[in-house]
Amino acid sequence: MFRVLRNLHRFRSKAPGARTSPLLVSSLRRPPAAVAICKRMESSEVYRIEYDTFGELKVPNDKYYGAQTVRSMMNFKIGGVSERMPIQVIKAFGILKRAAAEVNVEYGLDPKIADSIIKAADEVLAGKLDDHFPLVIWQTGSGTQTNMNVNEVISNRAIQILGGKLGSKDPVHPNDHVNKSQSSNDTFPTAMHIAAAKEVHEVLLPGLQKLHDALEKKAKEFADIIKIGRTHTQDAVPLSLGQEFSGYVQQIKYSMERIKAALPRIYELAAGGTAVGTGLNTRIGFAEKVAAKVSELTGLPFVTAPNKFEALAAHDALVELSGAMNVVACSLMKVANDIRFLGSGPRSGLGELTLPENEPGSSIMPGKVNPTQCEAITMVAAQVMGNHVAVTVGGSNGHFELNVFKPMIIKNVLNSAQLIGDSCVSFTDHCVVGIQANTQRIDKLMNESLMLVTALNPHIGYDKAAKIAKAAHKEGTTLKEMAVKLGYLTPEQFEQWVKPSEMLGPK
Amino acid sequence: MFRVLRNLHRFRSKAPGARTSPLLVSSLRRPPAAVAICKRMESSEVYRIEYDTFGELKVPNDKYYGAQTVRSMMNFKIGGVSERMPIQVIKAFGILKRAAAEVNVEYGLDPKIADSIIKAADEVLAGKLDDHFPLVIWQTGSGTQTNMNVNEVISNRAIQILGGKLGSKDPVHPNDHVNKSQSSNDTFPTAMHIAAAKEVHEVLLPGLQKLHDALEKKAKEFADIIKIGRTHTQDAVPLSLGQEFSGYVQQIKYSMERIKAALPRIYELAAGGTAVGTGLNTRIGFAEKVAAKVSELTGLPFVTAPNKFEALAAHDALVELSGAMNVVACSLMKVANDIRFLGSGPRSGLGELTLPENEPGSSIMPGKVNPTQCEAITMVAAQVMGNHVAVTVGGSNGHFELNVFKPMIIKNVLNSAQLIGDSCVSFTDHCVVGIQANTQRIDKLMNESLMLVTALNPHIGYDKAAKIAKAAHKEGTTLKEMAVKLGYLTPEQFEQWVKPSEMLGPK
Amino acid sequence: MFRVLRNLHRFRSKAPGARTSPLLVSSLRRPPAAVAICKRMESSEVYRIEYDTFGELKVPNDKYYGAQTVRSMMNFKIGGVSERMPIQVIKAFGILKRAAAEVNVEYGLDPKIADSIIKAADEVLAGKLDDHFPLVIWQTGSGTQTNMNVNEVISNRAIQILGGKLGSKDPVHPNDHVNKSQSSNDTFPTAMHIAAAKEVHEVLLPGLQKLHDALEKKAKEFADIIKIGRTHTQDAVPLSLGQEFSGYVQQIKYSMERIKAALPRIYELAAGGTAVGTGLNTRIGFAEKVAAKVSELTGLPFVTAPNKFEALAAHDALVELSGAMNVVACSLMKVANDIRFLGSGPRSGLGELTLPENEPGSSIMPGKVNPTQCEAITMVAAQVMGNHVAVTVGGSNGHFELNVFKPMIIKNVLNSAQLIGDSCVSFTDHCVVGIQANTQRIDKLMNESLMLVTALNPHIGYDKAAKIAKAAHKEGTTLKEMAVKLGYLTPEQFEQWVKPSEMLGPK
Amino acid sequence: MFRVLRNLHRFRSKAPGARTSPLLVSSLRRPPAAVAICKRMESSEVYRIEYDTFGELKVPNDKYYGAQTVRSMMNFKIGGVSERMPIQVIKAFGILKRAAAEVNVEYGLDPKIADSIIKAADEVLAGKLDDHFPLVIWQTGSGTQTNMNVNEVISNRAIQILGGKLGSKDPVHPNDHVNKSQSSNDTFPTAMHIAAAKEVHEVLLPGLQKLHDALEKKAKEFADIIKIGRTHTQDAVPLSLGQEFSGYVQQIKYSMERIKAALPRIYELAAGGTAVGTGLNTRIGFAEKVAAKVSELTGLPFVTAPNKFEALAAHDALVELSGAMNVVACSLMKVANDIRFLGSGPRSGLGELTLPENEPGSSIMPGKVNPTQCEAITMVAAQVMGNHVAVTVGGSNGHFELNVFKPMIIKNVLNSAQLIGDSCVSFTDHCVVGIQANTQRIDKLMNESLMLVTALNPHIGYDKAAKIAKAAHKEGTTLKEMAVKLGYLTPEQFEQWVKPSEMLGPK
Repeated sequence: MFRVLRNLHRFRSKAPGARTSPLLVSSLRRPPAAVAICKRMESSEVYRIEYDTFGELKVPNDKYYGAQTVRSMMNFKIGGVSERMPIQVIKAFGILKRAAAEVNVEYGLDPKIADSIIKAADEVLAGKLDDHFPLVIWQTGSGTQTNMNVNEVISNRAIQILGGKLGSKDPVHPNDHVNKSQSSNDTFPTAMHIAAAKEVHEVLLPGLQKLHDALEKKAKEFADIIKIGRTHTQDAVPLSLGQEFSGYVQQIKYSMERIKAALPRIYELAAGGTAVGTGLNTRIGFAEKVAAKVSELTGLPFVTAPNKFEALAAHDALVELSGAMNVVACSLMKVANDIRFLGSGPRSGLGELTLPENEPGSSIMPGKVNPTQCEAITMVAAQVMGNHVAVTVGGSNGHFELNVFKPMIIKNVLNSAQLIGDSCVSFTDHCVVGIQANTQRIDKLMNESLMLVTALNPHIGYDKAAKIAKAAHKEGTTLKEMAVKLGYLTPEQFEQWVKPSEMLGPK
Repeated sequence: MFRVLRNLHRFRSKAPGARTSPLLVSSLRRPPAAVAICKRMESSEVYRIEYDTFGELKVPNDKYYGAQTVRSMMNFKIGGVSERMPIQVIKAFGILKRAAAEVNVEYGLDPKIADSIIKAADEVLAGKLDDHFPLVIWQTGSGTQTNMNVNEVISNRAIQILGGKLGSKDPVHPNDHVNKSQSSNDTFPTAMHIAAAKEVHEVLLPGLQKLHDALEKKAKEFADIIKIGRTHTQDAVPLSLGQEFSGYVQQIKYSMERIKAALPRIYELAAGGTAVGTGLNTRIGFAEKVAAKVSELTGLPFVTAPNKFEALAAHDALVELSGAMNVVACSLMKVANDIRFLGSGPRSGLGELTLPENEPGSSIMPGKVNPTQCEAITMVAAQVMGNHVAVTVGGSNGHFELNVFKPMIIKNVLNSAQLIGDSCVSFTDHCVVGIQANTQRIDKLMNESLMLVTALNPHIGYDKAAKIAKAAHKEGTTLKEMAVKLGYLTPEQFEQWVKPSEMLGPK
Repeated sequence: MFRVLRNLHRFRSKAPGARTSPLLVSSLRRPPAAVAICKRMESSEVYRIEYDTFGELKVPNDKYYGAQTVRSMMNFKIGGVSERMPIQVIKAFGILKRAAAEVNVEYGLDPKIADSIIKAADEVLAGKLDDHFPLVIWQTGSGTQTNMNVNEVISNRAIQILGGKLGSKDPVHPNDHVNKSQSSNDTFPTAMHIAAAKEVHEVLLPGLQKLHDALEKKAKEFADIIKIGRTHTQDAVPLSLGQEFSGYVQQIKYSMERIKAALPRIYELAAGGTAVGTGLNTRIGFAEKVAAKVSELTGLPFVTAPNKFEALAAHDALVELSGAMNVVACSLMKVANDIRFLGSGPRSGLGELTLPENEPGSSIMPGKVNPTQCEAITMVAAQVMGNHVAVTVGGSNGHFELNVFKPMIIKNVLNSAQLIGDSCVSFTDHCVVGIQANTQRIDKLMNESLMLVTALNPHIGYDKAAKIAKAAHKEGTTLKEMAVKLGYLTPEQFEQWVKPSEMLGPK
Repeated sequence: MFRVLRNLHRFRSKAPGARTSPLLVSSLRRPPAAVAICKRMESSEVYRIEYDTFGELKVPNDKYYGAQTVRSMMNFKIGGVSERMPIQVIKAFGILKRAAAEVNVEYGLDPKIADSIIKAADEVLAGKLDDHFPLVIWQTGSGTQTNMNVNEVISNRAIQILGGKLGSKDPVHPNDHVNKSQSSNDTFPTAMHIAAAKEVHEVLLPGLQKLHDALEKKAKEFADIIKIGRTHTQDAVPLSLGQEFSGYVQQIKYSMERIKAALPRIYELAAGGTAVGTGLNTRIGFAEKVAAKVSELTGLPFVTAPNKFEALAAHDALVELSGAMNVVACSLMKVANDIRFLGSGPRSGLGELTLPENEPGSSIMPGKVNPTQCEAITMVAAQVMGNHVAVTVGGSNGHFELNVFKPMIIKNVLNSAQLIGDSCVSFTDHCVVGIQANTQRIDKLMNESLMLVTALNPHIGYDKAAKIAKAAHKEGTTLKEMAVKLGYLTPEQFEQWVKPSEMLGPK
């Protein structure tokens, strides 16, 4: 049954059938999805019996998960494998379960049992047990079933380490030992925060930093290239290409600051709140110790949440982080849009930038090269804005002691973080670093510009300057020609007053 | 006191103080808002006493509204005058109350009372009593207070018509007569649908039609102008400017179809459902007759909602209409973006279109002209997208027998309809009708294009064509020069095969 | 290597390392993802050389895709395997490429080549070649790379069928034959529409129909159960439980109507527009014939888009469909919220409904049963609202002749359709069909209600009725006791006038 | 003409007609809007002639604005009076123009002229000239026309102060003096930031603080009331009502922190960047001095933006602030939803809280009292979420050196800030402070709860505890009865182990 479910949605509409193509012999060994499940489920020797408070269930012998996981798979056939609980959440649970086991020893948990839990949790974190977490996001809104999936996998793996029988819940019970002093309601939000913080630090911020650095390098490289500015998409007064890029640099610099500003509340962990935030069935000090342990394991400054009721019933901190990523999406949309428009052409666009050519651009127009990296990252930006609304709607709909949109919320937050981080790397490597200024074109456009007239304001006033520009535009002349023709100034004055290189800053 | 409240928010943060400027003498006579209210409330001769089930309240003598309206003003000081219940909703209530009175006669309402209600309701519809509807959107979520505001105004005005005493509820009682066979829970959604349908027909669709017609005229005018196409913002194969505009025409044509496709469910009226949808305290046939009467009064095909429970508890029909306007917003954003980019310049942009010059474009750059109408309509588009999310969130949060986001929902729907309708008119009158093709520029760009090479695909294949384009781009030559240089074809073949005018359609 | 890439993101942050657990021997045979790719890329005998207009590339020998696909994999490492182009798009391409090949025969394509293309396309549609489509959504915004992926896979498979050499582009060329008369710019939107229409018909509408039917059955089953209504979440006048459910039925009935209302514009296909909508390099009649062929292959009424410029440059039709699903999300949120609140308890909630118990509800609170199906479907609703914003942002950002948010748009549309369809089935099977009315509780609440006083309005007027209710509430008596005590009516009159069973409709 | 335009939209669809009601004599004197404008425009003695670079225009004699303002009124008839540029932006301009004049003296501006500008600017700030700012939001996207409206009003008022002739631009020129060293492109974003920061400090934060304090007081008041918890809307383990409210307190506490976290970037002012960010036509030091002056005038820590290119081309800082308000909206939605559900009833709901009765709740159901303040604030929450999307879409669509969604962005930001601030005050005053705990009901529900069984986990294990709860639920017994009956413990053990008061925290 191994990977089968994972492929379910890909096979959903049509069963693969029996015919095979020559190249696909090897895949023959992979039994067709749906069929396989039924077949193996009927085969008694491949399954063991486990039970939960609802009764018995057959569990595949080669899986560590137990009855509650199987029950969830039966009850929530929504969306298929691509809709699985993000692996980052599972790994965060590995960290949390290990931390809890270590702390529980201080409160009387048998060290031998704790050790086995720790070993199993480490394997979860290391990604060795990924195949044992088949549940989708669209399950119970507290993530209870994923918490139990983790409890079951760790308990069974720990039982195995200790030489016991899978599914016996002995000597390591999924609830009484692995979940000791915990509830789904506090562990799942804890895992959400751990996963989010790690994704931010491992993927999102490095991606932004990389983009920032590349843009900053370009801003310096382009410092002396004077070009026409554009406001309202219309010709405006000049600036340097480096100045233009410095705006992008600032946006990405602030992107990182915004993300970081949201982290303090992400570092607060719900663990220790148990079912409703009171900490029932846990011990004084447990919450603080678990947070300290998680902090130690991750190297991030996690602390116990000052108010556990808020930490279970609301996910404002994640809405906030999502909101920060929403701003980043706006920044990326702006920067990538600019770059593709400045790089438009090659002959009928603005043509000020030359973007790297990475692949053939058209299946019908030979020789076409497109700003595909800009397209990927702007699509990501749109997705992040959408994810943010999903998070907002979920975050606003908690009731009483528990918000039950947890899996959906964390899925979208992690998706946004990953997509931004990854696309920043891709955009940097395959676009930004290779951007070249088309200085010939830039010069030409700048020198033809009518908006250089603005430099005359302090000398002849706004109204006269406006008349020059409008007449030059109408008659197709240069500014100088028209200025002189209108008798507002001499050619010498024009030369003296209108110097693009002196229009780049205050005086 | 008439206009005072209306200006409340404008004076909110700072009282205007004592100093006045010469021109403002008249406004001195207008007492500062909040102060004025309190002062006059204390003055016994300017107020009458009215009561509701909560007790007595002073009501300004020159207002028709009564105790419940005053109570709402006291309890909901949110947002000030610009946040008032849209006047379209008030007028829709005028229609509904008239229709109900007419129908109630058939069920025993004293015709004299009914007549006075009808007269008063007509005045509401005619906008004569606008000053008597001071309540804001941010009140009870059922709109009960606005329904009572209407009941109070109509009953007092009707009492006055019949020679009675304001506030006496005799001979015309706001609940027992004006609201007869009705509840806020069914009248407010009825008014929402009437207001929405009217705004769609009076503002939204006419605005779209006008834009459509102007674009269609341009599409025909530009039919023979061949220009370079742009995909990925990059040069592509040619099309006619008329073809390009025909895409916009199609978008606006479909905009109208989408709006119309949402109307059937808007035409369904909740009236007759009363408090929870059962129609308690109303009479068999009342619902159908009221809908028929409203249809007669408006000329729109209103019918009674087939299921009143849905009609009270959900506002899916308005979410749907908002969704249709959201698509229209996407279309407008696209069209207006294209037009401003195609009109960018005058010298450093694409410059294919010349947009009308309507006003000075810059307070610092003389002679600058900006695509301001494009900017207004794209801002509207963004607003409509935001309004749509507000409507969606409100629409999703109904509970049991009643959705209590009604005023917020209808406010956003009407705002979107009005803004789109108005901005389409503005955009058409001040931009579209005056757009001119800069044919000289269009020809130049088209002839320089490398993407004309696509016409060679059927003759020499994609790979060779690509080589020509890339080499020409690299070396800055024309396609023909490079094609011949590479030996792929003769100059004559090039002339024969690459004809922009023959690239505008299939063969 | 088949499944490897698919698991890429799961292994992304940490390589699995060398340690293995006893149960995982089998997975050892699956080489760790990233490592595996690199290794095999270096192994000359496992790769063949293919080229595109950018140069040579190594392609895995066991893959049908070619150079452009490999190039995209190198250039777009964004998001991993769960972010792959939805398989529904790939299958839609299978349909389109088959249709195009059949039509191209009429315009001179060698029937033998066409036959091999058709066979290969059928395998794509049948899902046999799923492993050969590794590209992610976050690629070029026109979907060009996925179109080329399809062209490459089909041409190589067709070459193989005809006994040729993989990668030779002979005798079946990916551009000149498989993509004949096509461009990414018209084929990708065509595949988008085919995929969306199929998902709507195969997953979304059946799911909604199933839910509708189950709710309708419940509405009938509950027709005679009289219960208290609730407006503003507060006690209101009674209705039958069947009436309450009839509102839900109506919402889902209209859900289907809304989806269907969006389909006419989805049935319009861009095929035949080629690069910019003009149909360059295709033939007169091609567009119509391809649409007819696709219609024949799918059984859905596809037609050629009346305006190809709109069909390439905008995706309003998909924004519209997404908007319809957004309304459905509002409906589902409302219905599922009601059901979980009505089923809240077991002892401290409303407790009117008993929902099926599907799994243990808490890892810490024994015996707890939760409305998990409601939670899954409301999370889906939030996701659909978010997806809709992503689609809207993408849909609004097209420029000139091409919208380049195509893969992102179709991903979200398909995701919404699938999640709604699947979750409706899950919600129906595991919740709705098993809902039971807790009639004892319902009776008790209804009989204690103070809002039955509303039945007295026509007899003693609103104001006196209000006094009865308020006094009874304050003193904790029944309505009858207070009504008599206040002297407004006799006990006999109360019995005669206040009959819940007669409060369910107009008189 | 003063108030006429303001009422434009209210009269838009239907002219008021000739019939009048007795009370409305005074309003008769107010000529119907559109007609009035035209009439008076034709009357030469009421108008003066002003001109801009586009030509002459008639300006009402009793208005300080000039030609460019009139031109904008003619060109942008979108949305009517309720769509006017928020007065907060106008006042912020008052501050800025004063600051600029003061600084300009240091750079050579005639002190007499500066003084008159300062006086006029102060009148703008004081709200004395509100009637002179008629422009709507839906104008040019840079806010140029509002900047010019301000320049015109201040120059004309200054001219008047100095005894000159209105419209003469002498001795105070709107561009050369009032706008000296400025551009719309840097002044409008400066005004945006000033307005936003002030609204945050004057309305938003005080409102949140007030709500926070009231909730905190309630949390303390309710500290000893033990009640049942609810997770998944289902009965869960107990907590104190004070603990439950402490979660709300935390949410609002963090709301304020989130808003404050966004302010540093709001305090950055674009002034000094002029047209494209370079600071052309301004002086070295001007930017810093203006920021210092604005800081002095407002008491807020404004500084000059470190990068003016970013400050003009993007509004990420406002998207960020909007995002913070979006989180606040989620918090408010959660808190208000909880309160209305906990206060649901009076007899058929949860009934744990008694909310203040503020007004009659129903026009048909006598005695009904509704949680109207909860409804107002949740509607506000939905609106803020929608506003946030509008801001996001606008913020993402800047191009090159200028974002041209400025008026729309600031309108939504200010609207959100004002609505949240106002509704928090209303919600606090009319709901939160009057909330009472219904302790009798709370006790009853708590004691009947089955989830107290959780206290047995540490003693008899999860599985046995689950059996007790399920059996008690099924048979309708108490937990104690069932626990003893099943033989898992003695009555004495039950009494000892299950003490709600000891279930409120860890041990």
